Amino acid sequence: MKRAIVLLSGGVDSATTGAIAGADGFELYALTFDYGQRHKIEIDSAGLCAQSLKARKHLIIKTDLREIGGSALTADIEVPTSTFNLQPSTLIPVTYVPARNTIFLSFALAWAETIGAEDIFIGANAVDYSGYPDCRPEFIKSFETMANLATKASVEGKLRYRIQAPLINLTKTEIIKKGIELGIDYAITWSCYDPQSVTEVKSSKLKVIPKRRDNSKLITFLVPCGRCDSCVLRAKGFFEAGVKDPLLI
Amino acid sequence: MKRAIVLLSGGVDSATTGAIAGADGFELYALTFDYGQRHKIEIDSAGLCAQSLKARKHLIIKTDLREIGGSALTADIEVPTSTFNLQPSTLIPVTYVPARNTIFLSFALAWAETIGAEDIFIGANAVDYSGYPDCRPEFIKSFETMANLATKASVEGKLRYRIQAPLINLTKTEIIKKGIELGIDYAITWSCYDPQSVTEVKSSKLKVIPKRRDNSKLITFLVPCGRCDSCVLRAKGFFEAGVKDPLLI
Repeated sequence: MKRAIVLLSGGVDSATTGAIAGADGFELYALTFDYGQRHKIEIDSAGLCAQSLKARKHLIIKTDLREIGGSALTADIEVPTSTFNLQPSTLIPVTYVPARNTIFLSFALAWAETIGAEDIFIGANAVDYSGYPDCRPEFIKSFETMANLATKASVEGKLRYRIQAPLINLTKTEIIKKGIELGIDYAITWSCYDPQSVTEVKSSKLKVIPKRRDNSKLITFLVPCGRCDSCVLRAKGFFEAGVKDPLLI
Repeated sequence: MKRAIVLLSGGVDSATTGAIAGADGFELYALTFDYGQRHKIEIDSAGLCAQSLKARKHLIIKTDLREIGGSALTADIEVPTSTFNLQPSTLIPVTYVPARNTIFLSFALAWAETIGAEDIFIGANAVDYSGYPDCRPEFIKSFETMANLATKASVEGKLRYRIQAPLINLTKTEIIKKGIELGIDYAITWSCYDPQSVTEVKSSKLKVIPKRRDNSKLITFLVPCGRCDSCVLRAKGFFEAGVKDPLLI
């Protein structure tokens, strides 16, 4: 069985990507980063996704991107309310983490080389996305070229690395439809950049009313904000797919 | 003053690279990795080098490459005695760490983007080296291409990243001569892959007889083995430069 590394963040896109890799017949090696993101719930979700995908191994790499800073996801910068509904923006938002996918793919490459995998799956998407530069096809392609010059196995002519981004040209709606087709339970995924800590869900003023997550390994009272780019994209995707988001009531 | 990131491992090459970047007029941001290498003395040396180079900041990123494994420098694989003197080998040695320079440069890129630096200096060398694939000019070039597609600043057309590898075509002897010219005290650098713990230096059977390192921040009784690729290359470099290695008696 051919092995593949799957970058798993615990979100809709990476879970779907993992399911696609599994359906393609790969034995999955899931890779998640504990990089100092403000909300550990992502890592819990990634763990549930790895289990659900029957990954052979799930490696969580600890590496502190907070020391580098420069992003609302790692530094003390406020996560803004999405403006997608007002105007499509060409600006890259403050939630962009400098070189994050480059760093993640580099670790994936190291692991791929160690276990003899040629395929690295990433849930990058360049349609319904936040405009991050490291989600674009030209970035993915250039990383692949570099990967095949960086490593022992590629130099010795033994392996040819492929960076697979099967969602790159799909809309969020298409991604969700694909995932449902493949049997993903999106209740275990997490998308929100700015989870809210609430004790009484029903009295909260959140636009998206969440239910309590019932897996005991999760932090029960963190709920999606419903307003950040990631929540808005997720909501749009489920709405247009004609499916209820199982994470929400 | 233009800023530059300098990857600083504490060895001869990165110290020299830092000195070149300083002489080129850059304000230095030194970056070192605590990646689970077996010997922390490298990190101590990097700290001394950063001080000596008058780096504006020295960031030590903790990230555990041992979890990925696949190298004698991170996993429990024996560091071999160098065979450089017997035959030039085309094989990549077990001290190669999968995708290490890719990972290091990725973090450097993230930091460069955060602080607005366009230049990243790395002491990669493709002449007197261990044959690591990620030290070759074609790798460096492809990383640079990728970097300029990966980042916000490059997409917005504000910055153009350069991966500078000023030692890439120099012999170890030329590197050492250059460093001495620039005033580097190589006594604070560390090269050995397999330091030996000794209490009585004079009675040791090491081929290269080391003196005790006298900086109180260093582990006093670790001495270079004199037999690994890195020691052999260092010794050859100093010998041919006609200079005594100040780290040794």
